[in-house]
Amino acid sequence: MTITPSTPAGTLELLPAEQAIHDAMLDKIRRGFRRFGFPAIETPVFERADVLLTKTGGETERQVYFVQSAGSLEAGEAPDLALRFDLTVPLARYVAEHEHELVFPFRRSQIQRVYRGERPQRGRYREFYQCDIDVIDRDELSLRHDAEVAAAAIAILEDLGIGSVTLRINNRRLMRRLLEEVGIESEDAQTEVLREVDKIEKKGVDAVGRTLVDSGLSPESVGKLLEFTSVSASGVAAIESALSTLPARAESEAAEVAEVARTMAALGVDEDSFALDLAIARGLDYYTGTVYETRLDDHPELGSICSGGRYDDLAGQYTTTRLPGVGISIGFTRLFWQLREAGLLPEGSPAVPVSVALMSDDDLEYSLGVAARLRAAGIDTETQMTPSRLGKQLKAADRRGCVLVVIAGESERQRSTVSVRDLTRGEQVEVPLSDLVDHVTRRLSQEP
Amino acid sequence: MTITPSTPAGTLELLPAEQAIHDAMLDKIRRGFRRFGFPAIETPVFERADVLLTKTGGETERQVYFVQSAGSLEAGEAPDLALRFDLTVPLARYVAEHEHELVFPFRRSQIQRVYRGERPQRGRYREFYQCDIDVIDRDELSLRHDAEVAAAAIAILEDLGIGSVTLRINNRRLMRRLLEEVGIESEDAQTEVLREVDKIEKKGVDAVGRTLVDSGLSPESVGKLLEFTSVSASGVAAIESALSTLPARAESEAAEVAEVARTMAALGVDEDSFALDLAIARGLDYYTGTVYETRLDDHPELGSICSGGRYDDLAGQYTTTRLPGVGISIGFTRLFWQLREAGLLPEGSPAVPVSVALMSDDDLEYSLGVAARLRAAGIDTETQMTPSRLGKQLKAADRRGCVLVVIAGESERQRSTVSVRDLTRGEQVEVPLSDLVDHVTRRLSQEP
Repeated sequence: MTITPSTPAGTLELLPAEQAIHDAMLDKIRRGFRRFGFPAIETPVFERADVLLTKTGGETERQVYFVQSAGSLEAGEAPDLALRFDLTVPLARYVAEHEHELVFPFRRSQIQRVYRGERPQRGRYREFYQCDIDVIDRDELSLRHDAEVAAAAIAILEDLGIGSVTLRINNRRLMRRLLEEVGIESEDAQTEVLREVDKIEKKGVDAVGRTLVDSGLSPESVGKLLEFTSVSASGVAAIESALSTLPARAESEAAEVAEVARTMAALGVDEDSFALDLAIARGLDYYTGTVYETRLDDHPELGSICSGGRYDDLAGQYTTTRLPGVGISIGFTRLFWQLREAGLLPEGSPAVPVSVALMSDDDLEYSLGVAARLRAAGIDTETQMTPSRLGKQLKAADRRGCVLVVIAGESERQRSTVSVRDLTRGEQVEVPLSDLVDHVTRRLSQEP
Repeated sequence: MTITPSTPAGTLELLPAEQAIHDAMLDKIRRGFRRFGFPAIETPVFERADVLLTKTGGETERQVYFVQSAGSLEAGEAPDLALRFDLTVPLARYVAEHEHELVFPFRRSQIQRVYRGERPQRGRYREFYQCDIDVIDRDELSLRHDAEVAAAAIAILEDLGIGSVTLRINNRRLMRRLLEEVGIESEDAQTEVLREVDKIEKKGVDAVGRTLVDSGLSPESVGKLLEFTSVSASGVAAIESALSTLPARAESEAAEVAEVARTMAALGVDEDSFALDLAIARGLDYYTGTVYETRLDDHPELGSICSGGRYDDLAGQYTTTRLPGVGISIGFTRLFWQLREAGLLPEGSPAVPVSVALMSDDDLEYSLGVAARLRAAGIDTETQMTPSRLGKQLKAADRRGCVLVVIAGESERQRSTVSVRDLTRGEQVEVPLSDLVDHVTRRLSQEP
């Protein structure tokens, strides 16, 4: 008569030890965003369906989840709510709705889950965290912000303890000038070609070249185009030099890319951490200028872990105010899953580092007092409430991921001491109660 | 041709300054839970509808939101997903599903939003945060955990900076013995009466007494019952003394309540922070032993801000393992709203405390370097990317909630200094670049 309990398909649910690593990583991202001056906002998980789905026909919109109350469903009504499928449309709604209460340029960070009704497959989630930062201004937004969001993303990713990254930059307007140079003039044709260029990494340059020729472009045009898309360079001087080889008609767009690179260096970004790469196109037509992708240097096979770009007008569907912006997004759940699969998750702090054992009911008050002392010093501490064999308690604490077990039995109590068992090293020492906090603090910070 | 952007009814959306206060409070709760040894978990926002809705007919289940993908809706299917309406059913599913991977007693904290299709009204939300801790064991769970969750809740609430609290304790089994004493023997009749007793605070003791008499109870029984429900006491000694006046048939239940009180004191809880109150019944029949409610001492009119209790079997719908538990929950969104309405929100840190101004394009590199220096020291810093009049920049920084504006103009640059304007005090001082971090750190920590 029981129902088999199971999580819905396409969701990632973690046990406490992995949740602690997950949350510690998210927390680093959150603090990093704030360090760069991007305060956090949150929006509701659902939006009014008519507000969310103003641009019809997109792939993401076909994957939307609709929401309706039991009453509305019973009444046979159409759903009037839908789960957000990204954080950009809710940002557009937020900025348009609160326009007169916000200060521009408006920076915001947002770390929330989004929902897409994708066909479940390994590493593809229906519910996943996105970690976004964007800067929005009215009418005009300085190009320098394109450097700012990229600098923030690099600093934050490098702080995660998953190795060094390279953020690759391109500019979609620059690409359009280069497409004109090889004779592809119409905007629609350019969009089609850019979509194909975006597949170079996945399909290889030869396959993309053949597809482009098959679609009717001259082999000569395709050859010149693929020469452009092979341009890449790392470091400000090399980027400037590579850009100087491009045709004159792309001069002002090339100058923009160079300015972004120089501003990133001024923001203190290590010049090894970013590169120009004219093969980066970002499939989304949404982007109108700078575009970014970011890879782990030691694991490029994981693909881009952080992408984004510049857009001309964030919220045209909601307001007549022109709101240009630039933003970048970490697809966190997928990244976490990939790192876990590859055995690359950073070492995390234990969910709860210290456990206070209970040897007999007579020791309860003393043991609870010991725990209270540790907590008062800010040390995360669990307490055993039922006495049992020490071996059993040590094993349970170890399985929970604790590092230290504090034993406060009768003999310790009589001497006003405690015994501290280090589960990692298998050592046990007796310390006076008055030294407990110092001792535990030292052990947890890995000092000898 | 634009759609009016608006947040869905029944959701709380905040501007960055209030979001920072909101998040700082949630963060304190999160860290408090961990300090008491309750590691965090997260569950998906939706569950399979057949898994979530196993107990039919409850008020909460009638308020459930159903979820379905665009494809499923088009195909005319019934929704197979639903948004969680609390964190307890997902916990039951989690524990039953992962039973063999968890270590018991299993402590967990969970801070996520839940969804109820309530009629929107002031202070009632359709989307709201709950902050829950629970301890679950197999077969038997020590009564001491009833004290543990209460102690954790009190410590965490007192840490929020919203004033002192009193957690009031009762025990539903104790109440059943007292109802037997006044001649109410059947369990169903007891449940009905307890539901009425739960309204004493709201309707007053006289109104509840009349309702009970009208329902057919003798005035004498009602009189004796209301004498019992008037029993309250603060501090272990007073609680023990009050419990000793109760009839002999309630002796073992009274002893349990006394043990919970004594264990709370042993856990280091201030004896002013908890009280026995036999008028607390908690409407939910779900609870089978200890029940809690918590009020702000200076604002009892806000009602209970943190409630919970003991239950016999968490997950009977999912597993044949008996899983007794005890838990407590802070209804955070409602609390935040109430505090805001009453002007009682704690002082929060600013969303971004420091802004670096930009006086002219020539100063860009110097200004960005100053910002990088502050960030490297862990100080949250925004930078102006476009030069404008200083007055305008100061005003914008002030509106964003910044406390300090760092000015790194030409004259400062030539002297390797910066000027730091304190927006709160209206003072400005010039400091050498090498002293900047110390100066800002001191100012932000409010030291002179």
